[in-house]
Amino acid sequence: MSKQEIVLTPRATDGCCAPISTAALDPDGAAEGATVFKALADPIRLRLFSMITSAGDEICVCDLTPQFDVSGPTISHHLKVLREAGLVDCERRGTWVYYWPVPEKLQWISSLLAAPAIRA
Amino acid sequence: MSKQEIVLTPRATDGCCAPISTAALDPDGAAEGATVFKALADPIRLRLFSMITSAGDEICVCDLTPQFDVSGPTISHHLKVLREAGLVDCERRGTWVYYWPVPEKLQWISSLLAAPAIRA
Repeated sequence: MSKQEIVLTPRATDGCCAPISTAALDPDGAAEGATVFKALADPIRLRLFSMITSAGDEICVCDLTPQFDVSGPTISHHLKVLREAGLVDCERRGTWVYYWPVPEKLQWISSLLAAPAIRA
Repeated sequence: MSKQEIVLTPRATDGCCAPISTAALDPDGAAEGATVFKALADPIRLRLFSMITSAGDEICVCDLTPQFDVSGPTISHHLKVLREAGLVDCERRGTWVYYWPVPEKLQWISSLLAAPAIRA
């Protein structure tokens, strides 16, 4: 599936949790959430994820790597961790690999961490 | 896309970032975010944080520890990590320590991960 064909639809009950501000996580939900947060718990990976998520569409690995002072293989490793956590997906086209965010996953962690209004 | 064309997230003085779905994080914002996600990247800590956040007010450590199959000192260690990340705060009263969430921090990570509107 190309990025253009993705239809963003909210997930109903599959894998979706109530916000932690309203209900405590059960052990399974906590394990699932911790896996995602572990993928985001590295400054390079979090920055990569923000670049991919904010790109609007998809982004070539050739546009990501030059932003960092680490090697291409290191960037590839971090991108693999993000992909294995289900946060991004990718496709090789010719020389380059193109990445895009998985909207359902961002929606999931966004819902999980939805904050209540701050009381005055 | 060249390095110069990447739009970096302006960081406000109150520690609030634009959602990563709209702007890439700069290295400082990524480091700050990664520290918080590292604190949430453990199933026990994430579950503890969800219990404290959903408690409505504050919760006694004596009500948290029995929910887990690990020792009291282990729970205390995880709570210390959450506190050092600025996610919770606490106060000792007599025998017990009471924990509550820091709403500004949850608001911060919630804003950071805010998902874009779902396209129909």
